[in-house]
Amino acid sequence: MKAFMGKDFLLGTETAQQLYDGHAANLPIIDYHCHLDPRMVAEDHRFNDITELWLGGDHYKWRAMRTNGIEEKYITGDASAWEKFYHWADTLEHAMRNPLYHWAHLELSTAFNIHRTLNTRTAREIFDECNEKLQQPDMTAVGLMKRYKVEVVCTTDDPVDSLCYHEQYRKQQATGPRMLPAWRPDKAMTIDRPTDFNAYVDRLAEVAETDIRSYRDLIEALRIRHDFFASQGCSLSDHGIDRFYADDYTESQVNQIFSQVRAGHQPNPTEVSLFRSALLYDLALMDDEKGWVQQYHYGPQRNNNSRMMALIGPDTGFDSIGQCQTALSMARFLDRLDAEGHLAKTILYNLNPADNEMVASMIGNFQQGPQPGKIQWGAAWWFSDQKDGIERHLNTLSQYGLLSRFVGMLTDSRSFLSYPRHEYFRRILCNLIGRDVEAGEMPQDEMPLIEQMVEAISYYNARDYFKLSSSHRHTKQILRR
Amino acid sequence: MKAFMGKDFLLGTETAQQLYDGHAANLPIIDYHCHLDPRMVAEDHRFNDITELWLGGDHYKWRAMRTNGIEEKYITGDASAWEKFYHWADTLEHAMRNPLYHWAHLELSTAFNIHRTLNTRTAREIFDECNEKLQQPDMTAVGLMKRYKVEVVCTTDDPVDSLCYHEQYRKQQATGPRMLPAWRPDKAMTIDRPTDFNAYVDRLAEVAETDIRSYRDLIEALRIRHDFFASQGCSLSDHGIDRFYADDYTESQVNQIFSQVRAGHQPNPTEVSLFRSALLYDLALMDDEKGWVQQYHYGPQRNNNSRMMALIGPDTGFDSIGQCQTALSMARFLDRLDAEGHLAKTILYNLNPADNEMVASMIGNFQQGPQPGKIQWGAAWWFSDQKDGIERHLNTLSQYGLLSRFVGMLTDSRSFLSYPRHEYFRRILCNLIGRDVEAGEMPQDEMPLIEQMVEAISYYNARDYFKLSSSHRHTKQILRR
Amino acid sequence: MKAFMGKDFLLGTETAQQLYDGHAANLPIIDYHCHLDPRMVAEDHRFNDITELWLGGDHYKWRAMRTNGIEEKYITGDASAWEKFYHWADTLEHAMRNPLYHWAHLELSTAFNIHRTLNTRTAREIFDECNEKLQQPDMTAVGLMKRYKVEVVCTTDDPVDSLCYHEQYRKQQATGPRMLPAWRPDKAMTIDRPTDFNAYVDRLAEVAETDIRSYRDLIEALRIRHDFFASQGCSLSDHGIDRFYADDYTESQVNQIFSQVRAGHQPNPTEVSLFRSALLYDLALMDDEKGWVQQYHYGPQRNNNSRMMALIGPDTGFDSIGQCQTALSMARFLDRLDAEGHLAKTILYNLNPADNEMVASMIGNFQQGPQPGKIQWGAAWWFSDQKDGIERHLNTLSQYGLLSRFVGMLTDSRSFLSYPRHEYFRRILCNLIGRDVEAGEMPQDEMPLIEQMVEAISYYNARDYFKLSSSHRHTKQILRR
Repeated sequence: MKAFMGKDFLLGTETAQQLYDGHAANLPIIDYHCHLDPRMVAEDHRFNDITELWLGGDHYKWRAMRTNGIEEKYITGDASAWEKFYHWADTLEHAMRNPLYHWAHLELSTAFNIHRTLNTRTAREIFDECNEKLQQPDMTAVGLMKRYKVEVVCTTDDPVDSLCYHEQYRKQQATGPRMLPAWRPDKAMTIDRPTDFNAYVDRLAEVAETDIRSYRDLIEALRIRHDFFASQGCSLSDHGIDRFYADDYTESQVNQIFSQVRAGHQPNPTEVSLFRSALLYDLALMDDEKGWVQQYHYGPQRNNNSRMMALIGPDTGFDSIGQCQTALSMARFLDRLDAEGHLAKTILYNLNPADNEMVASMIGNFQQGPQPGKIQWGAAWWFSDQKDGIERHLNTLSQYGLLSRFVGMLTDSRSFLSYPRHEYFRRILCNLIGRDVEAGEMPQDEMPLIEQMVEAISYYNARDYFKLSSSHRHTKQILRR
Repeated sequence: MKAFMGKDFLLGTETAQQLYDGHAANLPIIDYHCHLDPRMVAEDHRFNDITELWLGGDHYKWRAMRTNGIEEKYITGDASAWEKFYHWADTLEHAMRNPLYHWAHLELSTAFNIHRTLNTRTAREIFDECNEKLQQPDMTAVGLMKRYKVEVVCTTDDPVDSLCYHEQYRKQQATGPRMLPAWRPDKAMTIDRPTDFNAYVDRLAEVAETDIRSYRDLIEALRIRHDFFASQGCSLSDHGIDRFYADDYTESQVNQIFSQVRAGHQPNPTEVSLFRSALLYDLALMDDEKGWVQQYHYGPQRNNNSRMMALIGPDTGFDSIGQCQTALSMARFLDRLDAEGHLAKTILYNLNPADNEMVASMIGNFQQGPQPGKIQWGAAWWFSDQKDGIERHLNTLSQYGLLSRFVGMLTDSRSFLSYPRHEYFRRILCNLIGRDVEAGEMPQDEMPLIEQMVEAISYYNARDYFKLSSSHRHTKQILRR
Repeated sequence: MKAFMGKDFLLGTETAQQLYDGHAANLPIIDYHCHLDPRMVAEDHRFNDITELWLGGDHYKWRAMRTNGIEEKYITGDASAWEKFYHWADTLEHAMRNPLYHWAHLELSTAFNIHRTLNTRTAREIFDECNEKLQQPDMTAVGLMKRYKVEVVCTTDDPVDSLCYHEQYRKQQATGPRMLPAWRPDKAMTIDRPTDFNAYVDRLAEVAETDIRSYRDLIEALRIRHDFFASQGCSLSDHGIDRFYADDYTESQVNQIFSQVRAGHQPNPTEVSLFRSALLYDLALMDDEKGWVQQYHYGPQRNNNSRMMALIGPDTGFDSIGQCQTALSMARFLDRLDAEGHLAKTILYNLNPADNEMVASMIGNFQQGPQPGKIQWGAAWWFSDQKDGIERHLNTLSQYGLLSRFVGMLTDSRSFLSYPRHEYFRRILCNLIGRDVEAGEMPQDEMPLIEQMVEAISYYNARDYFKLSSSHRHTKQILRR
């Protein structure tokens, strides 16, 4: 009987423990995709209480609370911090086997040094203890990042964003974690909603200080902002899409659709698809020109609950896993770029794990030296970012590709307390490998290679792939000798 | 080396054994969805022999026998009871690792106290011994239900059914298992087959003692029967659908389609989809008005073998798992009801396990207090109702939702010998949890909560969710304190 | 800690070890589907070096090398044998947990008696040692087949093929492995590419010595070749399709499409689908008439990388797993044949494991005595032919059908060194069964049946199903007594 979440949590063999302790635990974190608020970093935000920190914007927890039958008042409503926390504790009692149970206790132990389980009986004392500790000097946004050895963090930013908080933080921050913007032009894709789209195009024109009268003008305005993002240290893009788009189109067709939507017309689905095919391609060209890494997160079905959408807006826990048949358009999209010599380093994330094998085999179609693992199958995402999902991702990636070339974990989180997910991921990784070694399925006499692989996936692959770390530090190349 | 199907069958750890023995094994059964014949219950049917009991209507066994190369004569044909049993024993020899192998031996041991393995060598003696024991007074339909501590059973009934056997049983039965009807209006959805549909509408008009001249009349006739079912103790509906339907429609469109089909016209696929969208919605309104639980079983591809369909009809082992893209229509269907304040407690069952994660995440979109687990992802169904399928369901439900709020197992069976499937399910549940506790992934110091969770999923959640148990017994609330 | 790939590799229990050693290891191999070159068999090809043998045509390895960032020059280019081998060794260092790592070392140990791990440090000595051993008299194409106890091998042949190497080999080979042709008429399906299709039809007419002026002529020409293949010992067909085709059509529609394509017109997708529906059906009739086994491999998305397609052609590592919704057309296709009494023994292979349960349940719709396992779900294919994929296939087949009736493993390979995959498969099979026995989930007192099952899946089922072994040897029936 192992102690709950003890030193060897998730590490089922001695080899796994040695790999984790010796080669994963102490490496820094490159969190190359997250949804942290740059302002909170720039201002080194201090949290009122554990309720703000934990429940302020975490739709994973909100969903669980609704499932537990908690009234909305105690979730996103006007109940007190303590009331919300109490109902969260009640929910956690009912959340064993859900990743929230591990995450919450990992966060309590690593950030607050609290090793008791949270439940309705311990809720009050843990609430008080956390709140007291949140008054300590190092328990701020940046303080938490340092605690978890975050080396770089990439936020998620709209092309019209001024990036002022990035600039502010960069100027004031001599040491400590770097924060870089990442380019997420999703709003330019919302042509299916003309009112939102037109407001966005107007705003983009204003920010880019240019006129946007045609599709080509739109691209040029975006390029102006793309250049600006690059000047602010950005070298990653990210695209949240329901599926891939790769229809045949002509520039004049796309222009016509653009003009009609600008005139207030609602485009039909074919027109939406055509427009997005053009835009997705042109955006990818920009990424390639600048040598960026482009990420595609595809497959959610968003805003399923219109009642709650009207009440509390998007991203509040009412999205779920969609079904889509996008293997053909994904291949067409990547193939066109590859054929033209414009395929940037690319990371593909699927939301529905039923697509795992499709994507795991798709990346192999476009791998090309000299960059190892040029096309990546991104880490298990969102609903799949849990023990089973991570194991399935790592095992399938192993069987269909080269695990050793994987750029590893990211938090994709809105919370400054999510960094233990890197620990969680590394423990699972070491456990799978340790098991294989002890079962005679990986060679014990190649332990140096295996140790390097663990280190590479935990840290070095991301460092080399994204080239985000400070260029001043001289770091050794480990895997590519 | 553990003995085959011994005391600790499927229980890999001591914790699992303690959880099962102390908190699952002895709880009664609420079988909230099955296909038992109400007449056999009302008449307390006595079985001629084990062949009737085992092979009389079990398409799982028939499929296995056909796969084993057995001639149809010995499956559904006119061979003798002994001949059929012998060929079933021959098939079972070849069925190791199939759930039938475990089910059959669990049924032999729990109903007949026979602990030998069934094969062609033991077939004769087991045949004789079973048949002899079937003469004992308590080896009847109701006797078997009592043996397995069945507290409530919900059958599956057509709106035109008189429910006379339910009435008969209710009047004669002072103690013992309750039997309740469940509303399954699938035949009203068969508008794609005008002849069947029209015959059904005529029959419905007759039974409801009303005229049906419009779509609205159809709904009113169904409501008359819905009211009648409610008066007979029904509080569950069930819908067997290939996919969800949630097209936009107007009442006049639906009325026109209805009229044309009543006049003998074959509707096109768009019309079928429109009509079903309206009907599925209107049926859901009735469920909500009465506070029922509604169930949706979606995804089969039925009657694939037209030769055998002509010979022996439907539900004889020629259905299989379909593929469908229904995430969007499922969400639209549920959202419309939710937005209008008419979403009843709902259980969604998918047949294709490739949809598991989609459904597991879908239910989270519509959870709402104060009912914990208002929207349920139903237990692993039909082809997936086996060890791997149950484990996948429980693990995915755990990772995407709150396992502790799950209403648990049902048999979905046509056989009075299927109750050990609840034992099978509970053993698998306890095994998963016991493993997690011993591996330090669930907290050993929260054993009381864990024990409550096992009890809740085995029995109490279903009792509280369906409110089917006798209202006279005062039962404590366990999980909601 | 088990030694890497030692005697009990993949065998986690004593029972598994006993089953493998006593009942699987020593049985011969029936490799009923592969892509070996008949000429290399007929001429008993001797390999220049290990690079030719390993890297000459293996797109699995090529994909891995590209993923590892190796330049194409060292993969399919003009680099030296040693350079290519070195970069392969470098890739293998990074390929742990990929099936290539196990396969390569299994091949080194079983063919070359080399038990060291291959990496950049050992590459030179292993390269030299392999090349030296390849000079030994028995290290030829046929020699390798004998070494692995290959009893029969079925190649993959186009209807226009002369089968001259089959004839040559048959005449010269008194003892040793048999080689038989298999019928793969995929090129007759390429009506979507009129130029290729018309060239093929012309060639077919020439070879069949007949005129092809209509669709019916096409069928008759194919039948002439089908007869010829039968005369050369062929009794298996194989069809590589993206999905199943089962549209309603009339002969005159199909004829018209055929004529238009022959006149150089590009058919639209509906016409392509119609034509293929007819052809797939007519080809299946031929298989049934002759009592052949027909195989369908469906689901790849081919030639995704047009740049590399132009450079080095098809089948070079740029195919991946497609998504398709083919459950309905698959059922319709099989049902029509079954209803008309013309459904031959059939093996269905899906590429996307998301379809596993659909296909595993589909086969049950068309099983029919007296042939046990008449319809088979083929072994885990291509990308899925690895440890996880094989385990998923075997477990799902067990739960949805009768594992004991499975015809087992095939290599589907282009390499004379792939035979250890049968060992790999048998070890995995024995491991699953051994685990179940020791866990009390299979009955220890039925070990003779279990041992027979292992033998049957390893060898005897294929022998009895395909009837490929020499008719002169008198072999006992094991499972069907």
